[in-house]
Amino acid sequence: MNKSELDTPYVLIDLDAVDRNIARMQDIADRAGVSLRPHVKTHKLPVLAHKQIEAGAVGVTVAKLGEAEVMAAGGVRDILIAYPIVGKQKLDRLIRLAKHVNVTVAVDSFAAAEAISVAAMEANMTIGVLVEFDCGFRRVGLEAGVPVLELAMQLVQLPGIEIKGIMTFGGQAYQAADEAELRRIGREEGQAAADTAELLNDEGIAADIVSAGSSPGSQYTAFVQGVTEIRPGTYIFGDLMQVALGAQLLEDCALTVKVTVVSRPAPGRAVIDAGTKVFTSDGAASPIGTGKGYVVGHPGIKLAWMSEEHGMLELGENERSLAIGDTLEIIPVHCCAVMNMVDEVAAVRGEEIEAFWEVQGRGKSR
Amino acid sequence: MNKSELDTPYVLIDLDAVDRNIARMQDIADRAGVSLRPHVKTHKLPVLAHKQIEAGAVGVTVAKLGEAEVMAAGGVRDILIAYPIVGKQKLDRLIRLAKHVNVTVAVDSFAAAEAISVAAMEANMTIGVLVEFDCGFRRVGLEAGVPVLELAMQLVQLPGIEIKGIMTFGGQAYQAADEAELRRIGREEGQAAADTAELLNDEGIAADIVSAGSSPGSQYTAFVQGVTEIRPGTYIFGDLMQVALGAQLLEDCALTVKVTVVSRPAPGRAVIDAGTKVFTSDGAASPIGTGKGYVVGHPGIKLAWMSEEHGMLELGENERSLAIGDTLEIIPVHCCAVMNMVDEVAAVRGEEIEAFWEVQGRGKSR
Repeated sequence: MNKSELDTPYVLIDLDAVDRNIARMQDIADRAGVSLRPHVKTHKLPVLAHKQIEAGAVGVTVAKLGEAEVMAAGGVRDILIAYPIVGKQKLDRLIRLAKHVNVTVAVDSFAAAEAISVAAMEANMTIGVLVEFDCGFRRVGLEAGVPVLELAMQLVQLPGIEIKGIMTFGGQAYQAADEAELRRIGREEGQAAADTAELLNDEGIAADIVSAGSSPGSQYTAFVQGVTEIRPGTYIFGDLMQVALGAQLLEDCALTVKVTVVSRPAPGRAVIDAGTKVFTSDGAASPIGTGKGYVVGHPGIKLAWMSEEHGMLELGENERSLAIGDTLEIIPVHCCAVMNMVDEVAAVRGEEIEAFWEVQGRGKSR
Repeated sequence: MNKSELDTPYVLIDLDAVDRNIARMQDIADRAGVSLRPHVKTHKLPVLAHKQIEAGAVGVTVAKLGEAEVMAAGGVRDILIAYPIVGKQKLDRLIRLAKHVNVTVAVDSFAAAEAISVAAMEANMTIGVLVEFDCGFRRVGLEAGVPVLELAMQLVQLPGIEIKGIMTFGGQAYQAADEAELRRIGREEGQAAADTAELLNDEGIAADIVSAGSSPGSQYTAFVQGVTEIRPGTYIFGDLMQVALGAQLLEDCALTVKVTVVSRPAPGRAVIDAGTKVFTSDGAASPIGTGKGYVVGHPGIKLAWMSEEHGMLELGENERSLAIGDTLEIIPVHCCAVMNMVDEVAAVRGEEIEAFWEVQGRGKSR
């Protein structure tokens, strides 16, 4: 089946670009001598997790238990849940999961760790944990250095859990103004992780895994001495945020939304059949001059604004022949968020559809 | 089952508030002597469409064919698709739908109308249309007045379609700075519709349906002489946008997200287990001082920012005893968008769960 036959809006995944992106990040990890553990919240598809693992990834990272369950059901055998697990229902699910796959969990509090400890003891098993700290993003995670050591010293005394190492996420990389700042953030993230790990090691708490690295920052974080693992995610598809940060080329963006022009109410305006219910409202308008999406092959068209089901295109002088029924492909600002909006995507190579993939991890926010 | 037993994040619908909101909007329509045709993109649930119809609504409004199919399958018999239908696959679906429910379609171009005409003729049926015009939102729709008349005069000559009237949507009401501006926008929307309808009627084209009115604007639009129908949607749940516009009381907001505190990384910060993958990035931070969501019963907590799976709460001095495992309920900025993020919601009355509802219209963007 040819992709031109798809009704719209439809999310397309370009498999050639995916292959290039997987190879590029694996190459960064290999050259740096670190493990690659991609965050699969970007694609939510076991089939692509296996592609990453076949290329050399040691396992995957997920944010939610629901995502971990999807990956486990898809045959992925090594999963880091980079998120606090809280509450009896989630602990029960964690234990069930840990019985058949290798699960590691991020912790940043004694309370959460203690609950995992109790649940693991009751199940007569041991759950690996990474102590999470904050390197400047101000989300979850204790402050780097001594607070992490202090929590680790409490955790080593808990039965049923085993400290495997530490982790952090330099999400502030997404606010970098230029490449120099991105490099600085990426390196500081790695250095904070390496320094904190050393603190634990000096006290006899083996921090074997020293995990850090975002999609834009990993190219710098990976090369900091002491870092052992990177966890980029978005790189597999890329989007306008990655392009704006200089972390990805526009031509390597693998995810596009195929849309149709449904209205031409004014000479300079066309309306497409996708809005925030496909593209989401995530992210600022792209600094590459195309608004909320890049219309492939049409630099003279700007995706100016969206409501839920409408996308408003501003047409440059040379684009005004665009007619009702015409289709376009648009690269979004934030690809991970788009994958969460649709139930199915089409995997294409050139013009041919190779597969339809149910987005099995969509909406798994519990 | 008690709502306290629900794992999080979970979307709750307060049925008492829903009943109040349905009654309030029906009362506005009744007092104005117009039909109420609620936009069901807000709730996406046939069960609530039937509640609206039982209270007096004449049918429903949807944006996409997929939503119309869900409503038809749920037994709703009168549906306005307030969106251009373009492309063979969608025309086929429209014809199938029109065979068993009363469907009316918005059109703002000869091209789209002609395609419906051809499809309807082939199926030996007639599809009702409303000519859509723009009253200032700059989305779809021709300019009010003469351009609408000119299109209508072309459309009356097409077989297989029948002009039922005209419609517009004053979405600019959402940018109103105060109640006076909202009133002005709401009235102008109604007046533009009434004037344009008169133009058609003067030329012998019966515009029986004169449809307009958003959730915040309908209280004004409905009372403009000549308007026959209003199409508010968001009012059934309400959200912080409606509250900010003075169109809804905070205590009448029916949709909340139940969340759990999963991290307390700093004295003034707590992190909850829901971010943009439940709340979406829609809308500005609320002007009522609570950021991206209102934490029910905790005016001293601000939902400061979100990433996909994390919500960062800033805690006032009196809220710092908030602990890991505590649960909260949060009113979102944009309720319609939240309903599109989850597969199921819990309908509650007081503390008791009366029903679990699959969000059948979720993700129906085709």
